[in-house]
Amino acid sequence: MSFDRDAVLLLAEKYESFYLYDGRTIAENIAVLQGNFEGVRFLYSVKANPHPAVLRCIIDEGVGVDAASLREVTMGKENGLAAGDIYYSAPGKSPRDINAALGCSTIIADSPAEVERIQAIAEGHGITADIGIRLNPDFSFDGEGGSASKFGIDEEEAFRLLPQWKGYKNVRIRGIHVHSRSQELRGELIAAYYGRMFELAVRFQNALGHELRFVNMGSGIGIPYAEQDAPVDIKALGASMSALIRQYRPQLPRTEILVESGRFIVGKAGVYATHVMDKKVSHGRTFVLLANTLGGFVRPSVAQMVESYTREEKPAGCEPLYTGRNAFGFVPLTEDRDTETVTVTGSLCTGADVIAQDILLPRLECGDVFVITNAGSYAASVSPMQFASLEPPAQIFLPEFGEPSAL
Amino acid sequence: MSFDRDAVLLLAEKYESFYLYDGRTIAENIAVLQGNFEGVRFLYSVKANPHPAVLRCIIDEGVGVDAASLREVTMGKENGLAAGDIYYSAPGKSPRDINAALGCSTIIADSPAEVERIQAIAEGHGITADIGIRLNPDFSFDGEGGSASKFGIDEEEAFRLLPQWKGYKNVRIRGIHVHSRSQELRGELIAAYYGRMFELAVRFQNALGHELRFVNMGSGIGIPYAEQDAPVDIKALGASMSALIRQYRPQLPRTEILVESGRFIVGKAGVYATHVMDKKVSHGRTFVLLANTLGGFVRPSVAQMVESYTREEKPAGCEPLYTGRNAFGFVPLTEDRDTETVTVTGSLCTGADVIAQDILLPRLECGDVFVITNAGSYAASVSPMQFASLEPPAQIFLPEFGEPSAL
Repeated sequence: MSFDRDAVLLLAEKYESFYLYDGRTIAENIAVLQGNFEGVRFLYSVKANPHPAVLRCIIDEGVGVDAASLREVTMGKENGLAAGDIYYSAPGKSPRDINAALGCSTIIADSPAEVERIQAIAEGHGITADIGIRLNPDFSFDGEGGSASKFGIDEEEAFRLLPQWKGYKNVRIRGIHVHSRSQELRGELIAAYYGRMFELAVRFQNALGHELRFVNMGSGIGIPYAEQDAPVDIKALGASMSALIRQYRPQLPRTEILVESGRFIVGKAGVYATHVMDKKVSHGRTFVLLANTLGGFVRPSVAQMVESYTREEKPAGCEPLYTGRNAFGFVPLTEDRDTETVTVTGSLCTGADVIAQDILLPRLECGDVFVITNAGSYAASVSPMQFASLEPPAQIFLPEFGEPSAL
Repeated sequence: MSFDRDAVLLLAEKYESFYLYDGRTIAENIAVLQGNFEGVRFLYSVKANPHPAVLRCIIDEGVGVDAASLREVTMGKENGLAAGDIYYSAPGKSPRDINAALGCSTIIADSPAEVERIQAIAEGHGITADIGIRLNPDFSFDGEGGSASKFGIDEEEAFRLLPQWKGYKNVRIRGIHVHSRSQELRGELIAAYYGRMFELAVRFQNALGHELRFVNMGSGIGIPYAEQDAPVDIKALGASMSALIRQYRPQLPRTEILVESGRFIVGKAGVYATHVMDKKVSHGRTFVLLANTLGGFVRPSVAQMVESYTREEKPAGCEPLYTGRNAFGFVPLTEDRDTETVTVTGSLCTGADVIAQDILLPRLECGDVFVITNAGSYAASVSPMQFASLEPPAQIFLPEFGEPSAL
């Protein structure tokens, strides 16, 4: 990936370790999605990267909010979004969450118990809540049959309960939501999944008896992490979606088609930069010690851990903690052209704090800046920054125009 | 493990998820160490659990501080400890860290470069720093030869550089530090390691030419996580240590013997409590959804992840992220005596948020309290609490006498 090397070097004079998020790349990624998916509204999965300036930038581009918690609902609201732009879809919402989110978001009920809970709370307020139902469909992402899931309501059960829900005075079912896969790189699979989603939406609408306002397809459009990963052909995927929209328009004339994206928008728009703090040779092996890796950006260390346990050539991902082999690029910002084989570790007092073993890198010295790529999504947000009471890395947003803003 | 069930239930009325740390258990654990290791000073590895009241309680019992960062040095100082009670041992300290830690801690140099750095900074201040050297010994914990490590200075190199260091005007080498294993349950291995440490200390002292003020043996006395784990025989281990101290007293008449402990002191003194937020049946499987597991207490989820990749019956640990199978006890606080087989997950929108698959538990309903044991060390401190912008769990300290204090 490309990043602004000069900006990194300049900021590295001030910060020992930091994330740099690039507003221009974020805007470009959104433009790619919006330009290729005519008639689709995108929602941003805030948990991928909740940095306030990142969120602001994304919302400014016309993207709505996929909120995984009440606080994420509030963040959307604080950015001026209306209830119809904020979809609150998470399992296990508390009555307090539901109470606070009513009226400022579109709540997606994740279980039969949640439908009851929303009905009761809305009744208490004397209002009617427009909600969605998260379904666990009878098909998988790969096209096989459905399977047990903690997410949503089994399709069969939802159809069975629908007549009952329709009789409720304080909830109106306005849409459905499905999300069954993250970080998928096979565009043809995603397209086929969209097709099954349209078919499900029509069936659900028929059972519901009134037009769906929205169908949230989730999605999980992946990004290439490792060099050998082929990116999704967004143009082809967008064309498939357009064809489906045309095909289903007669049955879903005004239904808003929603697609969620977290990592496609921000994943490659961020880097993590840190410094070489020490270097040593031990029993013939050269160690380069970086500031604040495990705590500041945990995923490269988790990847080393997973790969020490697995025997698979291509281990399956376990998002958001593990994606796959070689998911992060290591870019030392040194002028030295000599190379050497080194083990790269962090500065924590723990053996798990290793990010690369015996890799060939340009020769590094204390004080050099070291960049880790693919740090825009599920990076700062999943790292235990408080560990060992180290100073947490700064998180800096570089706007397309204007001055960087630090968190 | 035992915990105060009534206190958990009372606090659960106020908090959705929380850690509860028990001051009495902490004091008892320290008493076990101090009572069995006569002549040994214990240091607390603050990173295991840096909760202010936990730290205060431990320091009040006469335990010193093993600091892994500058901030941990400061925490020791804020609790009234002198430089001789705070050992700052971490790889990759910055010049700024060293500058701030000089005078209020005993800095352990982790590399030849750090010895130079401390010398230069102390010279700038016109002072002489009493330091220790972290060694990477020519023996392993198991007694085999040494191996490459990011920690410390290879024994051979340290002996080679010692004449040069002795000539330095602004550093005085006062001790050595070794730590090569965490969570070790085989007491006889630890005892044998202590023996090798005394032998190394005498050799180092002879080369140094003046008496060592301290020998920090690190150590890693483990705790039983799983039911089948046998605890370390502390009495026997303490007796071995006493015999060694007597044996080496003629050569090390005034040397303070230091042993570090984190998890032995706090690991079993903490539980994590949360609530059942939802329950659902999907494709015949029953799911119990808890509030805030992955973000609030990440290790049970990480354990599920590791065990999905490994084929080993007894996978090796990867501390502080993974210890071993069945490391956490699940204790539902329900009166229901019926049992059922359930999958226990968290409430995050991610598949990695699972803590147990198909386990037999007493029947749970929404609102029930669910306790996870062994949550006193490397629990809150390694969890990505900011993930999905969920409200972080409270951290409550229950003193032996007096009212609980919340963080």
